[in-house]
Amino acid sequence: MVQERLAGLRRKMAEKQIDFYLIPTSDFHNSEYVDDYFKVREYYSGFTGSNGTLVVSADKAGLWTDGRYFIQAEQELEGSGITLFRMLEEGVPDIPSFLEKEMKEGQVLGFDGRCISGKEGRQLEKRLEKKKIRLSFQEDIAGNLWTERKKLPCHPVFILPQQICGHTAKEKLQALRDRMQEAGADYLMLSKLDDIMWLLNIRGSDIACNPVALSYCLVGKEETFLFLQKEAVTRELEEYAAQYHITIKEYCGTEKFIRQYAFAGRIMLDEEYTSYSFYKLLTRGEYITGNNPTELLKAVKNKTELEEMEKVYLKDSAAVIKFIYWLKKNVGKEKITEVSAAGYLDKLRQRMEGFLDLSFPTICAYKENAAMMHYEATPEHHKELSPEGMLLVDSGGQYLGGTTDVTRTIVLGPVSDEMKRHFTKTAVGMLALSNARFLYGCTGRNLDILARGPLWDMGIDYKCGTGHGIGYILNVHEGPQGIRWRFAGENKEAVIEEGMVLSNEPGVYMEGSHGIRTENVIVAKNGEKNDSGQFMYFDTLTFVPIDRDGIDISCMQPEDIERFNRYHEEVYKKMAGYLNEEERVWLREQTAALF
Amino acid sequence: MVQERLAGLRRKMAEKQIDFYLIPTSDFHNSEYVDDYFKVREYYSGFTGSNGTLVVSADKAGLWTDGRYFIQAEQELEGSGITLFRMLEEGVPDIPSFLEKEMKEGQVLGFDGRCISGKEGRQLEKRLEKKKIRLSFQEDIAGNLWTERKKLPCHPVFILPQQICGHTAKEKLQALRDRMQEAGADYLMLSKLDDIMWLLNIRGSDIACNPVALSYCLVGKEETFLFLQKEAVTRELEEYAAQYHITIKEYCGTEKFIRQYAFAGRIMLDEEYTSYSFYKLLTRGEYITGNNPTELLKAVKNKTELEEMEKVYLKDSAAVIKFIYWLKKNVGKEKITEVSAAGYLDKLRQRMEGFLDLSFPTICAYKENAAMMHYEATPEHHKELSPEGMLLVDSGGQYLGGTTDVTRTIVLGPVSDEMKRHFTKTAVGMLALSNARFLYGCTGRNLDILARGPLWDMGIDYKCGTGHGIGYILNVHEGPQGIRWRFAGENKEAVIEEGMVLSNEPGVYMEGSHGIRTENVIVAKNGEKNDSGQFMYFDTLTFVPIDRDGIDISCMQPEDIERFNRYHEEVYKKMAGYLNEEERVWLREQTAALF
Repeated sequence: MVQERLAGLRRKMAEKQIDFYLIPTSDFHNSEYVDDYFKVREYYSGFTGSNGTLVVSADKAGLWTDGRYFIQAEQELEGSGITLFRMLEEGVPDIPSFLEKEMKEGQVLGFDGRCISGKEGRQLEKRLEKKKIRLSFQEDIAGNLWTERKKLPCHPVFILPQQICGHTAKEKLQALRDRMQEAGADYLMLSKLDDIMWLLNIRGSDIACNPVALSYCLVGKEETFLFLQKEAVTRELEEYAAQYHITIKEYCGTEKFIRQYAFAGRIMLDEEYTSYSFYKLLTRGEYITGNNPTELLKAVKNKTELEEMEKVYLKDSAAVIKFIYWLKKNVGKEKITEVSAAGYLDKLRQRMEGFLDLSFPTICAYKENAAMMHYEATPEHHKELSPEGMLLVDSGGQYLGGTTDVTRTIVLGPVSDEMKRHFTKTAVGMLALSNARFLYGCTGRNLDILARGPLWDMGIDYKCGTGHGIGYILNVHEGPQGIRWRFAGENKEAVIEEGMVLSNEPGVYMEGSHGIRTENVIVAKNGEKNDSGQFMYFDTLTFVPIDRDGIDISCMQPEDIERFNRYHEEVYKKMAGYLNEEERVWLREQTAALF
Repeated sequence: MVQERLAGLRRKMAEKQIDFYLIPTSDFHNSEYVDDYFKVREYYSGFTGSNGTLVVSADKAGLWTDGRYFIQAEQELEGSGITLFRMLEEGVPDIPSFLEKEMKEGQVLGFDGRCISGKEGRQLEKRLEKKKIRLSFQEDIAGNLWTERKKLPCHPVFILPQQICGHTAKEKLQALRDRMQEAGADYLMLSKLDDIMWLLNIRGSDIACNPVALSYCLVGKEETFLFLQKEAVTRELEEYAAQYHITIKEYCGTEKFIRQYAFAGRIMLDEEYTSYSFYKLLTRGEYITGNNPTELLKAVKNKTELEEMEKVYLKDSAAVIKFIYWLKKNVGKEKITEVSAAGYLDKLRQRMEGFLDLSFPTICAYKENAAMMHYEATPEHHKELSPEGMLLVDSGGQYLGGTTDVTRTIVLGPVSDEMKRHFTKTAVGMLALSNARFLYGCTGRNLDILARGPLWDMGIDYKCGTGHGIGYILNVHEGPQGIRWRFAGENKEAVIEEGMVLSNEPGVYMEGSHGIRTENVIVAKNGEKNDSGQFMYFDTLTFVPIDRDGIDISCMQPEDIERFNRYHEEVYKKMAGYLNEEERVWLREQTAALF
């Protein structure tokens, strides 16, 4: 199938005189998760992971993906003739280096300019100019060949109740315009969907699990243009927009609008989320690039948002606790599979007040499946659970009141001593980070080793960051803050500010054997301020027990045990009230102190 | 005195129509330590610290220095009318911001362009161009008024024995030219003294404690020009230079040489160590800036260098152990002062084979004096030691075989519980960093929290980095590696490579009370390489006991105690052979396991 599709693409490439064609995993907004409409790379490669780029030439095809997906990609690409390029591994070229080496002087590289960011496009330009390679980006050649392709998603946009927003759209627009002025910008072009939703206190449902609407927003000193698909605009939204002096325009006419608009002044744009096509248009006049100021404003949650999240995380934790109780009680007694277990948990969430969606498809991965960092069980391929080994469950919900994300690895029965050591050290690292005290000015790179160090001490690494920012009724992965050890670029390393929400999720992934991840969500808070500076600490939002059955207390220092017990004490105190008697008794045992 | 000198400077400024004058603490090479000839800033301010910049206008004067010197600067500036600007403290402007704000349109800023780096000069240019401020940098106005000024230092240059160098000058020049070619450079202008010494396997003694000679070096594809003061060139050096096709030229004629030389191709220069005067000359034609490739080559010690250092550190550790033994035995029995104690230690070093110099003036700081991070006792101002409190001793030597640096805080008698907690947590942090296991790719910023975290947990910070690179028979502070938590700029954060040598020196500094620092020197080594990547660890070079009398075991985790005992076991094993019977018995007690 994949081979036929690639053959079709190659015929079209030959016809258009395109030598190499690049298919990323992106929509027009560089969103992390994309609607099926945009899954062109999956269509041509068979690889279903959320991150990957396919490069096709007349006789070669290669897929680049990151460490989370190495195992999965290897399986899904088998027999396709596509070579897997493991990103960041020693000796593996990145795409620009690959193209620079493989392409011949004067050849043509094709891609859909709407699905490549300005930054990526410019990098390609720069790297390939020496070889006089031309970029052909005005046509969606690969997408146009996809005959069964769905329509662009389109759902009504809704307005968030003001009482859960903290700040009005007016206040946010004002804050944004202040930042624009500081930066010397007269206009800001926003392409990033969650930024637009945040700014205007609206939400959509055009992308599964991400409550965003396909949109653009152009903010001037006075005027605000919101570009939406016609069918997404309700009467209510029209009134709301009018109230805030927001002019609604047609989404599919955005490019034409930009081309024709009489810009009077300097445009600010974010090279990373503005598509290459738009970038080329917007940089014809005066412009500045840089981090989009909306990102940082959005990342620092306000008091109302934090209060709502606290409440939502307690309810969401209750759902997970009920799920774990049910699972541990029933495994081996009734037929439970990865799929049915995930379904059970999803239902618990769906029944909750204010539920909108899952915040990502629940990952329920048993035994060696859990070694695939972002494994997804399907009705066709999944495991049945039995009372042994470990089950990794990573899940979350979108609620009016917050976006949740939590991972627990549940011990279903006997596990090896090695697994227990891995499980214990993962918990130790997670709690060490949650208990960090640090000076204002730290970024995630200063702190990552607190979570990762206990695993490094065993010669084990997890090939991903330790934590990501989390949106408020928005994307479960949100920047600019994060907890990673590798340098991600100066603008990519946000200083941790009070009110930033982060995940904390170290793990161990042993191919063919087991996978462990323990994830809490934490909020940065200001602590003592003294001669040394402003100290900071984290509060925890997630209150779900960490499975005592996985613990080998001999790998813990007294300090680790204390942190573990203190956390479990809090779990019981906060969660008992959400449970029935049977569950409560069980939770009491699960949270009893380790000695 | 200072006020009279400033008055004289202000008269000269008025005459020359200079509105603001800037006096840094720099020689022509941006060296960290400078000869007395260059202490113009000290002459005009009275502040004796190693880092500080004075800015003078008709009616204002300000001195900028870093956290190590806040307490000292406050004392030394008293009554001078000079305002202290505490660098990096909240609300304190840096110098360019200060000038941008204070200077009026069209005014003139003066400085000696040979003592300001290209980078700093460009920053000033950029920041002040909006206000059309002119830079006057061709004359050393402040220096010329200093009538009692010494002559430029000048001592014979000597050649290192080849057997302790590992690589010949020829090999090093070849390695450097390979890097130049990679970077597309035809010439490299070297201004950094230790880089020049390293490259050519020569040493000098123009700067106290730094075995370097005032020099420049211009490396072309074939030719190498070495600029030295006439009197520094021995017959032996002439022959050596001829052997390696190095042309020796006059140091004082360097500027003229550059001005007149027919450069055929692109010049590479390091903006940070090339003076602004030279920068302006060298950037008239084709040039590239960036990190000087010599730095990284020099930072990664070769096998011979590491073997020599190991030997030297053992002998140097023996001197420190003998000193501590003598001190603890005799304090309170005979008169010992900060100065005489330092003198005793310095003599032990001077008697050692291969001794060249101290690697910096020994810091011997008793009680609250130790809270001044780089306090130096003087014959006029110092404390007498008594059998109570703590004495901080930071010292090192330059030997044929390596440069050492070690700090121990010695308990002379009763100390408070708080001091013990501080002392213990400092040791815990130091040993945690020394015992780190980490993946290749880490910089010091990933690791700093291991040493600093135990202090942060108590709400205490030390206002400096945790560690610096260390030269080989060269400067005790060497880049590009370092262990710091703050982001120092992308090019300032070297990935830790096998063979890099670093100090590890957390501390606690309580103004008016006490100061604690415990410093070992460590070497990065490659450990296990597996699926996760190349793991690394540190070996320790320093083997001096950490004073058990300062330890409060209740602040330690079992892991901390294990590390402490393991280190002390090694100290005894390696050092016993260097001691007499009496010292050995004492060391046995000092290194007995904690329980």
